[in-house]
Amino acid sequence: MTNLKQCSQQDVANFLKFANDIVDKARDIARHYYRQSKKQWTKSDNTWVTEADCAIEEMARVRVKEQFPDHDFFGEEYGDTTSERQLKWCLDPIDGTMAFVYGLPTFGVLIALTENSEPIVGIIELPAMKERWCGARGFTTTWEGQPCRTNLDRSLTDTAVFATSIDMFSDEERELFNRVSLNARERRFGADCYAYGLLASGYIDVVMEADMKAYDLMALVPVDEGPGGIITDWDGKPIKLDSGKQVLAAS
Amino acid sequence: MTNLKQCSQQDVANFLKFANDIVDKARDIARHYYRQSKKQWTKSDNTWVTEADCAIEEMARVRVKEQFPDHDFFGEEYGDTTSERQLKWCLDPIDGTMAFVYGLPTFGVLIALTENSEPIVGIIELPAMKERWCGARGFTTTWEGQPCRTNLDRSLTDTAVFATSIDMFSDEERELFNRVSLNARERRFGADCYAYGLLASGYIDVVMEADMKAYDLMALVPVDEGPGGIITDWDGKPIKLDSGKQVLAAS
Repeated sequence: MTNLKQCSQQDVANFLKFANDIVDKARDIARHYYRQSKKQWTKSDNTWVTEADCAIEEMARVRVKEQFPDHDFFGEEYGDTTSERQLKWCLDPIDGTMAFVYGLPTFGVLIALTENSEPIVGIIELPAMKERWCGARGFTTTWEGQPCRTNLDRSLTDTAVFATSIDMFSDEERELFNRVSLNARERRFGADCYAYGLLASGYIDVVMEADMKAYDLMALVPVDEGPGGIITDWDGKPIKLDSGKQVLAAS
Repeated sequence: MTNLKQCSQQDVANFLKFANDIVDKARDIARHYYRQSKKQWTKSDNTWVTEADCAIEEMARVRVKEQFPDHDFFGEEYGDTTSERQLKWCLDPIDGTMAFVYGLPTFGVLIALTENSEPIVGIIELPAMKERWCGARGFTTTWEGQPCRTNLDRSLTDTAVFATSIDMFSDEERELFNRVSLNARERRFGADCYAYGLLASGYIDVVMEADMKAYDLMALVPVDEGPGGIITDWDGKPIKLDSGKQVLAAS
């Protein structure tokens, strides 16, 4: 790392404002293509990529480079910068591209800033729903500008466990997921990143997922920790840039 | 049945207009309670019922009784009228109550009219999204007033199979569901009734579900058949009031 001095609260506030400006533009791009464009392709891992993913990531990369030429950038579509600078932006231009392709409104835009590999700013934006959660170290998480709080009233046996799909787990992981989720009141699939926002706002209580990448994960941490949620890997360790693919979030 | 004369096109048009009026009011009620009310209870089958379910069904029952005292009514919350009149309204006041309870926008309102047990009018309304699909015998299905068409370009290996949850199937049903869905490009859970609307509009191609009730099923048929979709039980038989719990819809 080039500089280990921690960002000030004012720095964090400025980065959050900058991230919001990028997401404003990303919302417009996503809404422009949603249910309109048939230009989509399959990547080598058999997942989707669309015109919207590419346009959003290109826009964000250009803006970060202009504004913060000394920051790193890791995006889903165009990869990771190889340097090890103190600050790195992580972007999933469309999280839930499957939902996006099939016209479902649960897809999102995820952007985060990491400092020495710890996420300090995160935004979960739902373009189709026009809903946005913003989290940052030292700040209260907000939903559409209003402060959020998680729900502390429900036990596991009285609530649902969320995951995007039963197919996101390896056989071994599925066994563990089943052990947790079949002890809950019920389980629910298909919420994508929306689940982590709904957790910050107190609507849901547990999300347990696997097969995540760093650009999927970083934005979730400040959003869910801000209002008192706990978000770690399956071993209970903090989520950082070099974490594994698993995440467990709870109110 | 009291009268086997088939309803005219004008009758059907009038019934569709009446159903739309009910759904206008249902949309307002659902939006009033969505993410606002914590008044929800567990039914004997361990599923949810909320203030919104009850308020919508009460409103619809009253209106049908006022306007069409000689029609039957079958609603999720307050049951079935026992007579066997020619025309019966079927209402699921909140389809996807689990989604509704956890603050997810994929819940819907489903209303249908059956004639001699065949669905002739159906509406799928998504209150959180303000989206509505209307279908009726002899009419083109519409989404927000615009005509729909299904997508005929994709094969099973190039598309997704949708279901609300892997947990909706019995062991035997799950085996068959897996056989179909694991031969598709991918599968997707959690769309509730939204999937049948998205199919009518050409965004998705296959929905395969089980554990459905008549009030879940009836509205889907006119919506998906209108733009050329095929919707049957798993044996390929037409969906009627006395069909089983399984449904297979395809573009």
